[in-house]
Amino acid sequence: MALLKKGKGKKVDHMKTCLRCMECGHEASLLVERKFVCPNCGGLYDVVHDLSSLDCKTFAGFARIFDERAMASHRESHDPRVTSGVWRFKELIMPYLPNNQIVTLGEGDVPIVPAGENLRNWIGGGLDLWLILEGMGPTGSFKDFGGTVMVSVAKAAGITNIGCASTGDTSAMAAAYAAAAGMGCVVILPKGKVTPAQLAQPLVYGAKVITLPGDFDICMKVVRELVAVGALFPANSLNPTRIEGHQATVFLTAQFFGWNLPDWFALPVGNGSNCSSVGKGIRTLYSIGYHRTKSRILGCQSMAARPLAESWLDAGESDATIDSWREEYRPMQVGETTATAARIGDPVSREKVMREILASNGAMVIADEPALNEAVSVCGRDGIFVCPQTGIALEGVRQAVKEGTIVEGSRVVVVSTANGLKFTESASDNPLGDIIEAPDCELSTVVKIMGL
Amino acid sequence: MALLKKGKGKKVDHMKTCLRCMECGHEASLLVERKFVCPNCGGLYDVVHDLSSLDCKTFAGFARIFDERAMASHRESHDPRVTSGVWRFKELIMPYLPNNQIVTLGEGDVPIVPAGENLRNWIGGGLDLWLILEGMGPTGSFKDFGGTVMVSVAKAAGITNIGCASTGDTSAMAAAYAAAAGMGCVVILPKGKVTPAQLAQPLVYGAKVITLPGDFDICMKVVRELVAVGALFPANSLNPTRIEGHQATVFLTAQFFGWNLPDWFALPVGNGSNCSSVGKGIRTLYSIGYHRTKSRILGCQSMAARPLAESWLDAGESDATIDSWREEYRPMQVGETTATAARIGDPVSREKVMREILASNGAMVIADEPALNEAVSVCGRDGIFVCPQTGIALEGVRQAVKEGTIVEGSRVVVVSTANGLKFTESASDNPLGDIIEAPDCELSTVVKIMGL
Repeated sequence: MALLKKGKGKKVDHMKTCLRCMECGHEASLLVERKFVCPNCGGLYDVVHDLSSLDCKTFAGFARIFDERAMASHRESHDPRVTSGVWRFKELIMPYLPNNQIVTLGEGDVPIVPAGENLRNWIGGGLDLWLILEGMGPTGSFKDFGGTVMVSVAKAAGITNIGCASTGDTSAMAAAYAAAAGMGCVVILPKGKVTPAQLAQPLVYGAKVITLPGDFDICMKVVRELVAVGALFPANSLNPTRIEGHQATVFLTAQFFGWNLPDWFALPVGNGSNCSSVGKGIRTLYSIGYHRTKSRILGCQSMAARPLAESWLDAGESDATIDSWREEYRPMQVGETTATAARIGDPVSREKVMREILASNGAMVIADEPALNEAVSVCGRDGIFVCPQTGIALEGVRQAVKEGTIVEGSRVVVVSTANGLKFTESASDNPLGDIIEAPDCELSTVVKIMGL
Repeated sequence: MALLKKGKGKKVDHMKTCLRCMECGHEASLLVERKFVCPNCGGLYDVVHDLSSLDCKTFAGFARIFDERAMASHRESHDPRVTSGVWRFKELIMPYLPNNQIVTLGEGDVPIVPAGENLRNWIGGGLDLWLILEGMGPTGSFKDFGGTVMVSVAKAAGITNIGCASTGDTSAMAAAYAAAAGMGCVVILPKGKVTPAQLAQPLVYGAKVITLPGDFDICMKVVRELVAVGALFPANSLNPTRIEGHQATVFLTAQFFGWNLPDWFALPVGNGSNCSSVGKGIRTLYSIGYHRTKSRILGCQSMAARPLAESWLDAGESDATIDSWREEYRPMQVGETTATAARIGDPVSREKVMREILASNGAMVIADEPALNEAVSVCGRDGIFVCPQTGIALEGVRQAVKEGTIVEGSRVVVVSTANGLKFTESASDNPLGDIIEAPDCELSTVVKIMGL
């Protein structure tokens, strides 16, 4: 069995970027690490950069650089810091990676749009409400933000094969960026339990799809074994380089509002990489001298998969500490929900999510199933087709307004995590949909149905 | 039966923008016309603007305005000329429409990306090859470019209900922009012959879907009758305001290349509105003083639906005239193809397509079914998931290179018309897909399949 080659060299400066266990502080090399779990204590790694050695020393200086790149982005360029809305912020994301190692599909420069009238009325509270549409990218989900960084670092580390067990956004992202990098990608799935729509992206992107005669848990077990023996580089949520890229959500939003953060970011929480990233992005901006509005994070979960929100509530809500939360936390058996991408009973990044919720003076809420689906319909009535996970966050904002957590006039940015086109089945089942069967094909019949 | 109200007033200056029959020159008011077919001769209308009365008089002056708006587009704004990549070019698209009539979903500012290595090698010919990814927008297809203009003009005309019979991109676009405008939208479809994926967008966007106990032709007939009696404002290809918006393809591309057009635009041709638009866009740029590279248009059709390409070939290819082409043109019975959105046997905009192919010294090609599907797979191997219609254009470019029509070193921009996520069924059926069934769930079995 040919194992993965160890990192070839110092393409990322080891001294200036490293992995550090968030629990015990153990450090590891970004280009050598293959398992992304601390060997001492089993904790998750953070990526840590020494930003102090960058040329730019002031927040205004960074903002000027990022603004210049954004302004050039409508022009032909082969500089990934211009063509990618993630690498625009390279100095804050992966500063010491050589530009020629960057693997990009032009991700990141997604629309930030004001909520429409129907959505504003439905949520209430007189908010200044916006959506960042992260599904408007290469593979149709927010995972592209992290994928471009993960695969670029993997390329620098000499990796030739990446893989995962995922039926959705992660396998699409891994397969697309592996293709762009010229790497192999393996997606391991349970035989007979995956729809053509879920298979389409990995297959089109040229991944090797291996189906196993077992359930999804067995697929995950085999992936863990492959990682353990060094046969596969994992594209899953354990890999902290993804979180570096996801910080772009915060940087794009701040830039959009003239280098001001909103009062709140509202996000759906599955494995939790996006919450972790938004929290880290806010802290990163502060670390380089930003000192205006500090955003709070609203972490939103569905009733079907609410292990973090429930334990935060049980631990005393805004009085919770990391210790009181740990005491209350229990993995849960997930129920049924249309928001399948966030249907996770034991989130990988739970410790990071809770760190960021607490650090941002944030909050958590639980969206029940009818309400999250209604949110998708209401948003659609404004001409914006979001995924059911976004529905969790929209209903979460509505609840936070009702409970008084989010006050009138607040600027709230909802992170819309995937393109609605990935969820057409659940959308067409929605009871709010208006289908009328005409008994015949006469003009007068149709005119009557139209209500004219 | 409450008929549509006639236009309320002079919101668009009638003297400066009008409809003119492309056959007999008959003129009609943009805000009063409801049927979009010349009452004298049955010809199609063009939208005609008097650009000479605009403040800006030079090409450089226009370019400066458009560049300033593009540079502001990463910042919060409520000016549609900044937030929309279509309305950025308002002076060339619908100059006399008041800004407060504009209905936008933030469409238009789509990525223009270089072809990847696999696609370049597959097409050959040493081209400078790019794709404009028009599926990366609000409703996932190029129809958004025209939809925003059509619905804005309809709003100015006092229209309260729009509609169509379409299973795909047109119904999605019409429903989304009607929602954004606060209008009603009716989509008429054959009962039991539409998939959940096709229904999802109109339903989410709040359209009234009426199913008839008949086939698709009967649905089209009922829509024509509704238009004829003034009960419905048509969102279909007859409406020439859509073509004004689609011109943005040309303007965005020219701006991207520093106000230079490519040697070729390659497009799939269904009803032909995009070919008509690209041709008009090129002519519009010339009319305001652009005088660099003049693009040629490569119109590409599938073997299953090739009425225009076949008649162009029969009429003598590059020796064809509009008269010799008309003599050869026959509608055709369409065959089966994965490129269903271009599966049209008698294209509505055929006269406009041929006018632009001839005016641009362009060409037409026919893509056979296996090759167009292969093109989608090859593009996927670079990490870009395009629709089968884009496959027609990619295979078209490959053929044009083989035949010597497109010469080495040419800059070619392929118009990718829809998001691959709209075509996951056909993508997952692709024989190039690599699915391997493992006989058991053992690590060693999977490692062997991975080829390690």
